[in-house]
Amino acid sequence: MTPRFDADGLVTCIATDAKSGDVLMVAHMNAEALARTIATGQAWYYSRSRRSLWRKGETSGHVQRVLEMRIDCDQDAVWIKVEQAGAGACHTGRRSCFYRAVPLGKSGAVTLEFTEGKTFDPTSVYHDR
Amino acid sequence: MTPRFDADGLVTCIATDAKSGDVLMVAHMNAEALARTIATGQAWYYSRSRRSLWRKGETSGHVQRVLEMRIDCDQDAVWIKVEQAGAGACHTGRRSCFYRAVPLGKSGAVTLEFTEGKTFDPTSVYHDR
Repeated sequence: MTPRFDADGLVTCIATDAKSGDVLMVAHMNAEALARTIATGQAWYYSRSRRSLWRKGETSGHVQRVLEMRIDCDQDAVWIKVEQAGAGACHTGRRSCFYRAVPLGKSGAVTLEFTEGKTFDPTSVYHDR
Repeated sequence: MTPRFDADGLVTCIATDAKSGDVLMVAHMNAEALARTIATGQAWYYSRSRRSLWRKGETSGHVQRVLEMRIDCDQDAVWIKVEQAGAGACHTGRRSCFYRAVPLGKSGAVTLEFTEGKTFDPTSVYHDR
């Protein structure tokens, strides 16, 4: 494997729910996060905003067990199928970060539609954000 | 909707197969590609390497009809569920760009495993690459 890290040393990672197939989140991995994910079978990411490595669920308990990892044709993106622990993957309290639908067939300003409610109270699980 | 474009004016787009749930490809959209995708219900992207807008399938015929679009919590990534026309989405001749598996539980050098063969001959459909 020869991952093609971008100028910031990152590849894109898409995490899907192994059961439902839904996209749970999109995040980034640096070489260390990628190596730890492969070695441990748990999802590690690199936070661009916090500039630090993090193990998904280290604060919330919502860890992701990686059942399968794929890499794309140009090796700048990985897809992991995960078993999501706890109520959800999103820091806003939803199962998936993609909880708003964009209506199609429109031009001009677009109003988002909420597709799912919160499954947990984020203030009760994310204490350091 | 207030998409958060990066420094290059792009958001990340994940296209999944509406039937199988498989991730077909990851690409980028600028404001124009996003607007055209929403307006037409067909996937438009922005190629970073060619620095141009492109409609998926304009050369290959492998168009993507967008059945649903979602946007994530921080609005820098969109997820589209598509009906993929033709034999596949990947320019290498596979249905999905994610045709290689990364074995888990290893450290050090990792050898990729091919999970699926070619479903079409890319030289017969991509004439301008």
